Amino acid sequence: MNRITSPKNGRVKEWKKLKNRKGREKAGSFIIEGPHLIEEALQHHAEVTDLIIEETFRIPSEWHTGNVTTWLTNDEVIKELTETETPQGIVAIVKFQKQDLTLNKNGTYILIDGIQDPGNLGTIIRTGDSAGVDAVILGEGTVDLFNSKVLRSTQGSIFHLPVIKGDLKNWIPRLKEEGVKVYGTALEGGIPYTSEKPDGSYAILFGNEAKGVQSELLEQTDQNLYVPIYGNAESLNVAVAAGILLYGLKLQE
Amino acid sequence: MNRITSPKNGRVKEWKKLKNRKGREKAGSFIIEGPHLIEEALQHHAEVTDLIIEETFRIPSEWHTGNVTTWLTNDEVIKELTETETPQGIVAIVKFQKQDLTLNKNGTYILIDGIQDPGNLGTIIRTGDSAGVDAVILGEGTVDLFNSKVLRSTQGSIFHLPVIKGDLKNWIPRLKEEGVKVYGTALEGGIPYTSEKPDGSYAILFGNEAKGVQSELLEQTDQNLYVPIYGNAESLNVAVAAGILLYGLKLQE
Repeated sequence: MNRITSPKNGRVKEWKKLKNRKGREKAGSFIIEGPHLIEEALQHHAEVTDLIIEETFRIPSEWHTGNVTTWLTNDEVIKELTETETPQGIVAIVKFQKQDLTLNKNGTYILIDGIQDPGNLGTIIRTGDSAGVDAVILGEGTVDLFNSKVLRSTQGSIFHLPVIKGDLKNWIPRLKEEGVKVYGTALEGGIPYTSEKPDGSYAILFGNEAKGVQSELLEQTDQNLYVPIYGNAESLNVAVAAGILLYGLKLQE
Repeated sequence: MNRITSPKNGRVKEWKKLKNRKGREKAGSFIIEGPHLIEEALQHHAEVTDLIIEETFRIPSEWHTGNVTTWLTNDEVIKELTETETPQGIVAIVKFQKQDLTLNKNGTYILIDGIQDPGNLGTIIRTGDSAGVDAVILGEGTVDLFNSKVLRSTQGSIFHLPVIKGDLKNWIPRLKEEGVKVYGTALEGGIPYTSEKPDGSYAILFGNEAKGVQSELLEQTDQNLYVPIYGNAESLNVAVAAGILLYGLKLQE
């Protein structure tokens, strides 16, 4: 068993670089923390290369850790690699996966334009997974998928469905060509989602928390939708709106 | 115009006590920050007693600040009183309001059992306001409503509808007696919300992020509901589930 005792260890220094986007992109891998997320990664065949565990942590016997290098270490090193206030004694290094997207005739897709809050992005991926969405496409200006808070907020859904980066200006026409109806979301100039009955494959585009979806993209969609406000709120949280729309359209199919 | 220059000023020390629950309960008031929330408080006739503003902040002319004492101060004092990373130069002190709840024959209500995350509670209040809910009742063990992050997450909805504290064990039978149908939420032992058609007044009970609704309370409800999971997620975020249920039941009325 490999052992690391100092946070100044060269390997720890390399892993720490994965805490920011640049470091992750250079290394081609990311870091996840906590037993739940790591179990999901292993179960769903993500390429886990290293497990770094605090000495008293016991790896559950049902985990398949065949090709994974395991490192025993202490709290101090775990603290260096994690971002939660009370780390749970285990961290893993996971390789980026090349994800190709094959469109499905009856598929449902989520497009993300510039969502900035990590909790919102993670929660939308989790909600999409729950609603049976086939893939999520992240446009430019969106918070990094491998940000530690995004990963935690997905609650493991990041390992359940393809989440890819792409240029939405190109993806919208491509989806339409393939027979996927593209819905934008906009408070103005749309119709209430309650009057839309989807038929076949569709994609829904969600936008930035403050600015919404870029108007250029809204012009490319087949139809723009909004969630009606019956009370006095000015707007809904974008992850909540995603849940309402995904489940609402599903009921109306 | 009153002026405060030092964070050691006695009044600043008193206001700082409002940053925790005990201090708020003793003083009978709470603190809000940022122009948006303060504007909502003033517009919706919350009892704002003090406005504490950084010298360069300009109070919009449409604000009615008639009975409010205004204090001019500096960044340092504002920082002491706020919890966001980049405070927006204005803080207000608001008195607790005695809120009586008169049940409405066609009303919709939210009951909260032990939600712990401030962002979740605030977002549920905002979502309820958006869905046209008449009131929210917070059971014991729920995060404090006047926690700064809860208030911010409501985006002002805290000032739009009554949010009261109460004992849910007593409220559930009381609601039922008054003809309000009470729905619990539970992954097991319920029916999918998609097969429920509400008729008249109803309340929906949401539970703790990890443990859900207490089983004692689930036994008191008329019917328990769940949101079906079509993909591989284990569960939904509770605020997202609230949005799906509130809007879903509304469509099915």
